[in-house]
Amino acid sequence: MARRPGRPRASAGPDTGRGTAQDILDAAAALFCTVGYTSTSTYAIAERAGVRQASIYHHFAGKHAILLELLLGTVRPSLANVDALAGGDAPIPARLWALCHADVTLLCAGRDNLGALYLLPEVADDRFAEFRRLHADLRTGYERLVAGFPGVAPEEAPDLAALVLGLVESVILLRRGEPALRAQDVAPRVADAVQRILGLPHERIAEVRAQGLALGAGLPASG
Amino acid sequence: MARRPGRPRASAGPDTGRGTAQDILDAAAALFCTVGYTSTSTYAIAERAGVRQASIYHHFAGKHAILLELLLGTVRPSLANVDALAGGDAPIPARLWALCHADVTLLCAGRDNLGALYLLPEVADDRFAEFRRLHADLRTGYERLVAGFPGVAPEEAPDLAALVLGLVESVILLRRGEPALRAQDVAPRVADAVQRILGLPHERIAEVRAQGLALGAGLPASG
Repeated sequence: MARRPGRPRASAGPDTGRGTAQDILDAAAALFCTVGYTSTSTYAIAERAGVRQASIYHHFAGKHAILLELLLGTVRPSLANVDALAGGDAPIPARLWALCHADVTLLCAGRDNLGALYLLPEVADDRFAEFRRLHADLRTGYERLVAGFPGVAPEEAPDLAALVLGLVESVILLRRGEPALRAQDVAPRVADAVQRILGLPHERIAEVRAQGLALGAGLPASG
Repeated sequence: MARRPGRPRASAGPDTGRGTAQDILDAAAALFCTVGYTSTSTYAIAERAGVRQASIYHHFAGKHAILLELLLGTVRPSLANVDALAGGDAPIPARLWALCHADVTLLCAGRDNLGALYLLPEVADDRFAEFRRLHADLRTGYERLVAGFPGVAPEEAPDLAALVLGLVESVILLRRGEPALRAQDVAPRVADAVQRILGLPHERIAEVRAQGLALGAGLPASG
């Protein structure tokens, strides 16, 4: 079964079962994104993963725990990037360019459009509070960079950050209509557009892009 | 409560006076967006709408036909706006501003975040081809305006239009985290951001916004 690069593994013990947990996650991702979350049984996941159904319950508390792990896996690498970009002395526009580029790349990665799972009604449930908290942390990370962007007034930062993260995550919607969407095409375009939204003069985009690409190459989850 | 003549209703539930088909659509929208499409039975829809289950099959071929109608209902008003904005002599930036503003307003409207249904795996099915076709028409409408935007090269227009429509539709994702999101706050912000993405100089935004608001007031679906 093909493994996706850059995606964290399930938190099962380091010596036993890591491969199985990942196989279960991969199988569930494929089924949730094609058949749907509700229509997918743990039996179907087990069958696709090539494990016994009991194995699933050895690694996960249930189907919701598999969904939670998949959702967390879409946000954790982004948060690692936010942390990595918080330090250093690179200018804010370049850091934000690198973050947007990396996040679009992550959302385009993998066989399954896992971001589409964000819109499942189930995600409003208490059992997915951890995902919603990490996603709020990601938005805070964007907000800090947006607030430090030259020319952005502090009181505008929360709304502008929501807009920026919205544009980054809109590739989830775009992938739906264009399954062959390539990160290398769309990620720089989105990252450039974010700079324009925040008022970077047109003639400075190429410079910020070059700085952002250099920064991005050093990120923990560089897509 | 005035009853409309025609097919008998079950005694419980809302008689909104808007017609049985609309009551069925409203009930289904609420259930699809909270319980989920797969988990919602036509029985549950009938119960919530206050009609007999047989009534549903009088108005719709089945649950999928209800979903299709809800999806079409999110795109048809936008297409009416595209048509209305195709004529006239208003400048392209103002027309695009008006279209973005109206579409964000439509996506924010109503109790249920119907745009979230775009990401259901079922929508890839042949039975939803009409929705996908209308949505492609909407994208073409955006593409025409983007292609006519001052300074946009023709070969850039399709990708930029996808980006613009993505930003407009990202309010679907935003509403998920912020159910109290208000169209009057977010719609002008998105419409302004689209102008910046396409390179409108900062000092011209206020003028285009004023033109766009005036144009928008005359649209068939002005939110």
